[in-house]
Order: sequence, then C-alpha cells, then structure tokens
Amino acid sequence: MARKNAFYAQSGGVTAVINASACGVIEAARAHSQIGKVYAGRNGIIGALREELIDTSRESKAAIAALRHTPSGAFGSCRYKLKSIEENRAEYERLIEVFRAHNIGYFFYNGGGDSADTCLKVSQLSETLGYPVQAIHIPKTVDNDLPLTDNCPGFGSVAKYIAISTREAAMDVASMCETSTKVFILEAMGRHAGWIAAAGGLAAEQEGDAPHIILFPEIAFDKDRFLRKVDRTVKKNGYCVIVASEGAQYRDGTFLADAGTRDAFGHAQLGGVAPTLAAMVKDALGYKYHWAVADYLQRAARHIASATDVEQAYAVGKAAVEFAAAGHNAIMPAIVRGKGKRYSWSIGEAPLAKVANVEKMMPRNFITRDGFNITPAARDYLAPLIQGEDYPPYKGGMPQYVKLKNELVPRKLKKRFKV
Amino acid sequence: MARKNAFYAQSGGVTAVINASACGVIEAARAHSQIGKVYAGRNGIIGALREELIDTSRESKAAIAALRHTPSGAFGSCRYKLKSIEENRAEYERLIEVFRAHNIGYFFYNGGGDSADTCLKVSQLSETLGYPVQAIHIPKTVDNDLPLTDNCPGFGSVAKYIAISTREAAMDVASMCETSTKVFILEAMGRHAGWIAAAGGLAAEQEGDAPHIILFPEIAFDKDRFLRKVDRTVKKNGYCVIVASEGAQYRDGTFLADAGTRDAFGHAQLGGVAPTLAAMVKDALGYKYHWAVADYLQRAARHIASATDVEQAYAVGKAAVEFAAAGHNAIMPAIVRGKGKRYSWSIGEAPLAKVANVEKMMPRNFITRDGFNITPAARDYLAPLIQGEDYPPYKGGMPQYVKLKNELVPRKLKKRFKV
Repeated sequence: MARKNAFYAQSGGVTAVINASACGVIEAARAHSQIGKVYAGRNGIIGALREELIDTSRESKAAIAALRHTPSGAFGSCRYKLKSIEENRAEYERLIEVFRAHNIGYFFYNGGGDSADTCLKVSQLSETLGYPVQAIHIPKTVDNDLPLTDNCPGFGSVAKYIAISTREAAMDVASMCETSTKVFILEAMGRHAGWIAAAGGLAAEQEGDAPHIILFPEIAFDKDRFLRKVDRTVKKNGYCVIVASEGAQYRDGTFLADAGTRDAFGHAQLGGVAPTLAAMVKDALGYKYHWAVADYLQRAARHIASATDVEQAYAVGKAAVEFAAAGHNAIMPAIVRGKGKRYSWSIGEAPLAKVANVEKMMPRNFITRDGFNITPAARDYLAPLIQGEDYPPYKGGMPQYVKLKNELVPRKLKKRFKV
Repeated sequence: MARKNAFYAQSGGVTAVINASACGVIEAARAHSQIGKVYAGRNGIIGALREELIDTSRESKAAIAALRHTPSGAFGSCRYKLKSIEENRAEYERLIEVFRAHNIGYFFYNGGGDSADTCLKVSQLSETLGYPVQAIHIPKTVDNDLPLTDNCPGFGSVAKYIAISTREAAMDVASMCETSTKVFILEAMGRHAGWIAAAGGLAAEQEGDAPHIILFPEIAFDKDRFLRKVDRTVKKNGYCVIVASEGAQYRDGTFLADAGTRDAFGHAQLGGVAPTLAAMVKDALGYKYHWAVADYLQRAARHIASATDVEQAYAVGKAAVEFAAAGHNAIMPAIVRGKGKRYSWSIGEAPLAKVANVEKMMPRNFITRDGFNITPAARDYLAPLIQGEDYPPYKGGMPQYVKLKNELVPRKLKKRFKV
C-alpha cells in the first residue's frame, strides 16, 4: 500500500483532554510505517479548506508527549459544520483538492456529534466524488452525548471538576449558612443532556449531602416545585446547594436563560441559568444566595483531570490510527465498559452512520423519581469515569502546558478558498 | 500559671486553608502543658455567645491532622461583628460569663480586618471589664488586605486558583477564537482590593499573553478606555481575556455590578461584574463573549491550594498558641518576607491596634501605568505565594476532606443569649 499522509483536526468545543487524543494519533502514526506525516488543520477543518496545514513532524517527541497533559486545542479548533454535498459541493471539492495536493489518505476528525456527521460525509468521498480517503471519527465532547460509546473523552474530566467544585463549595456554604449564604447555585455546562450537572451528584457521600437539587435539561423545570424543594431543604439543613445545567428548560422547551444568540451550528447560546435561579429564590423566599458559573473553567481544567479520562482520550486517538492502518473507514473508536463488577474498559468500533447527529440523553432511571437528583444507577455509571488524578508538571506554582511551534506546510495550491 | 482553656473561632468568609490554621492551633495547644482544652466556637463567635462550644479534645489526632487539607470552616464561621462595648456591653458581659464558666483564658480569633477589631476589643476585657484573657488574632482572608503582614493566609491558594484558571481558560479561548468566542471575562473576588484579580496576571509568561486586561477596584473604571482596549486586543491577538475584580468601580465609587443588598457587616453584596462587562462588549463591539464567575469555587478550591499558603496558614495558627503561651496579648502573628532574592518567610508579631480596620490596597506601582495589568514588581510579590502544590488525599477520584464530630461541651449556664 502506498504511503499516505494523515490529516487530523480538532472540532467544536475543546476539552481538558482533546490534546491527549492528538498525542495518541501522532504517536501512533509515527510508529506506523504506512502512514506518512500527520498534518493538523489549523483551527480545525477550516485549516483544510484554507490549505493551512500544520506539520506535526516539526514538533519534538517531548512536545508531542506534553500534549497529553495540555488542555485546549493545540492546533486550534472551530465551530464550522460542512453542509451536505448537495448544498455545498465546492467545499468537498476543495477538501479533495487539498488532500490530493498533500497526498492525504487518512482523515481523523476529533469532535462531537456534528463533527461525526462531517466525518461521515468525508468517509463517503470515495463513492460520492471519487477520492479515496479513510475517515475515522475520534470521540470528544464534555457533553457525553455521543451514542454507541460508553462515555466520551472530555466528559470524565469535566465531571471530576464539577463533582469536586460542588463538594468544596458546599462545604464553604455549610460553614457559613448560620449567618450568611443559604442557597448556592453552580451552573454547569450541558446544552441538551444533563450528564455534567449529574456529575455534581458525585459530591454527595450519603443521603442528604449536597448537592440537594440538580436541574437536568431532561426534566421539565417547574418553578413552584423547585422553590418548595429549596425552601424545605434550607429549613431542614440550614442551606441548599443546587447544580443547574445550562440547558435547564421549561416544559415548552424554553431555556431558563436563553441569551437569544445562536452559535455557528444554530444552537442557542446559553449562560446565566444560575443568576436566573438566584433571582427566583430571592424574590420568592428571600434567602441570601450566591451563584457561580464555571463556564470554560470546567472544560479547560486540566489541573484536575480524571486519569481515566486522559487514558481513554489517548486510547481513542491511538486506536483511530490503528483502525485506519488496518483499512477501516467510516467508524469511531468507542469506549466499551467491561461486564465485571470492577470497572474496566476497552476500545471497540462504532459505525459512523449510527453516531452522527444522535444525542444520548440521561436515561430516566439515572434521575430520581422527583427529578431533582441522581440514582444509584447513575452513580455506578459516573463514578469510575472520574477515577484517578493525572497532574500536569508544575514550575513556580503554575502548570506547564506545551505551546507547539505549529509550522505550516508550504502551500501547493494557487487557489485560495474563502471560509 | 494556672492551666486555662482556649477558645478558637473562625470568622468571616472561609478559605481553602483556614482549617490548616485551626490544625496549627490545636496541635500546638495539645503540645503546651499550660493550655488545657481548645474549645471551638460553633459558627464562630456566635458559639461563644450561645455557649455552643465544640470540644476539640474529642477529635482524634488523625482528624485534627486532616484539617490541614480540608477547606471551609470545620467548626462553622459567621459574619457577625461585635459592636463596641459602649454600644453593646451585654455581649461582652456574656462572653466573660461563658469564658469564666469554661475556664477560658486564651482567645484565638481567625479572621480578617473586621475580626481583628473584635479580637482587639476582647484583648482589652481585662482593662475594660476586669476579666483577664489573652487575645491573639490569626490572619485569614482571601482578600489579602490586612496590613502589617506580607500576605494573608488564604490568599495564596485563591491566587493560585485564579492564575491557573485564567491560564487554562485563555488557552481554551485561544484555540476557538477564529470562529467562536473572542472575549472571555473571569470575575474574581476582592471587594475593595484587587489582589485576587491581580493574581490572574500570573497566568501570563510573556508580554502579550493573557490576561490582556485586569480590572482592579483601585483603578476607576472608564468604559470607553476599556472598550477601546478590548477592541485593540481582539484585532491584534484574535481574542481578549479579562480578569475583573468583583470590586471594579466607577470613579464615583459605584460598583459595576452592585446587587443592592448588604451583608451583616454592612458591605454591599457584589456579583455579576462579568455579565455586566460582557453586555458592554456585546453592545459596543458585537464580539462573541463568554464569562465565568468563580465565586465560592475559588476560595474553597483546596484541590489546588498553594503549598506555601498551607504552610503559612498552619504556621500562624501554631505561632498564635506559642505567643499566647509566652504571655502575649493583643497581637497577630504576621508573615515577614525575607530580604534575600530567593523567597523566604518567617513569623513576626504585629500589634492588633494597628491591624484592626485598616485595608491594604494594591500599591500603585503594582499596576501598570495604563491601569490594565500588573507590573514586574507585582509579579515579584505574587509569584512566591502560589508556589508548590499540596494535594489532598483522594479516594475514588474525590478528595477526602474530614468531617469532624463537633461534639458540644455540656452547658454550664442556665441563661440563654439571643444572637
């Protein structure tokens, strides 16, 4: 088989461990003789369209190894969804032009559900436009909403961050509630699925521990029931800790805090559930409140990443290369949970056609009957994903994250492409 | 000298390391023969007034040692400021009644500026009301605004959290800015002094690194200058990261986000500077923004505490007991920075009369001429305070923080006191 280069791109919101997947891809590709260089898209798929390809072979072994402990997207990521071939054939023709010019035969796309859809379209370029390329999707999303994989790399670390932050903040509130804050609200990410907010539930060790209320997008928000629960909790415990998903919504699908703006994928841009809830509590109950919105802090928090998550992120990157080298196409390495009582996992293979554009919500049996907390089944699922600490190296009190050289491959095409 | 018991109380907002001071007090007291038991106030000074004294001698050696790595206030804290003796003599008489009933001759008060004032009044009870008691103030405040000590225990850890969070979130924004968020705002605590926001500046390694703008309470906010700086930064770097103190204010002293409510000390309760700034940016410049409000997460984040801070917090607790045992009164153990080029510190002694009700602001030479960042002098001051990591033990992916038994000493007084 002729030696072909590989294209790798990061897509959508970045995570604490997406670079660990990049590390897995590059280290595995360097070890496979039939794969030439790995070119990374500068700012994701846009880099392919613009012919802005980062030559990862210019990076030292140590720099690539350091990606494993570096958060964010080392090559840049983007929110840019390719339309269908019928709608925008020019984009696909441009991709082929760039791939051909740089002898690219492998396409590794590291992203969530929208990216899986793009990856699927690329995997079909051989049939649709006659350019042979193997496309492998590498799962990544803090939202944990991809199907056919037990969990998504990126989620375990944000889950650990939210669980620890909830426990720490709850202890703070508990020590002050006699004369100060009685209601504390932590807003967690998760546009449509409540996985991240659910992880806040891991802060509790026993019945009655904080968080006392979790608000999931999957459960229609009922203001009166919520306020009654807050009031009962404060009267019983002296304080009430709430973890609210940014996707918390009313029965009619209106988000509690819809900022009214939309991102490039057409999703509503959220933020501000916590202050909205705080205002409700204050108006109806008069309790002193505080609220926190962790926003990007939660998905960038490599300093407290889950070791399990880091290992899995690396493993799916490595497996993607191995699947490609073995001739596979249109698949996604998936994390498969072992059947035993003790947590174990391995890498399986999921067909991309069944991954793209499917969102995995929290199952109803992961949420307590009253809709305000997680069940033991949810705990059994979530707890292993946050296990282990994987601290980055520190210097002078600060984590040492790598900054790559990111040298671009010389252009071969005269034509520019406007993105 | 007759053996006397000690009273210890936590006051005001808790921190990641106030329990390390408690640990220092209790371990040192256990080693001093002239000090009997250490009784901790349940919920701070209120516990003394209500005769709710926690018997720390009921806690195991291991439990007390674990306080060193446990955030929040293990005995409960409160926001409750004693009035002057002239205004509320009954409170002081009650204190004496409780102290006498429980043979208390040492008073250790672990708090900030307001608490130093209370501690000073207690130190004068011998003169004013004829009850002999030695009162030592143990410095604690994330705000770092106490005078006569180089820094305040609690600050180094929140500084480390903000510096790391700023670096991590800035990397996230940098990787996405081509198609997504261009302006990110992190709101940090610090009511009147900009120390915590300043620590965000440690995220930068070289000129031009994030954060690009820091907003200090010490520098009057000028909306036009701010927006121009944001715009220039986005045009130059592609994105702009801002760390804003909750105390950021206009020239006339109006806070950018005054929620209009006040706490028990009469201070305005703040929160919401970040969304306020985000709205300004959106309205004037139209850039896509994200914002985070770390709130209690920052001061409770024991998982990423500064080892230097933990050591100093322990040391001031231990020193307080040693000063008391040596017969001192009305003082505060202070952290004294060594003169050498390499950072060193020792414990000195500051007279309480000069500590109470004085706020230490950021010196002007710590802030760049344009008012938007920190100077090398600030960096020299701040950097040593975040040095070293002091990770708590983990089990199943979660930090193991101790929960004390907190058994109350049997009451000796019939009279109740309403607080």
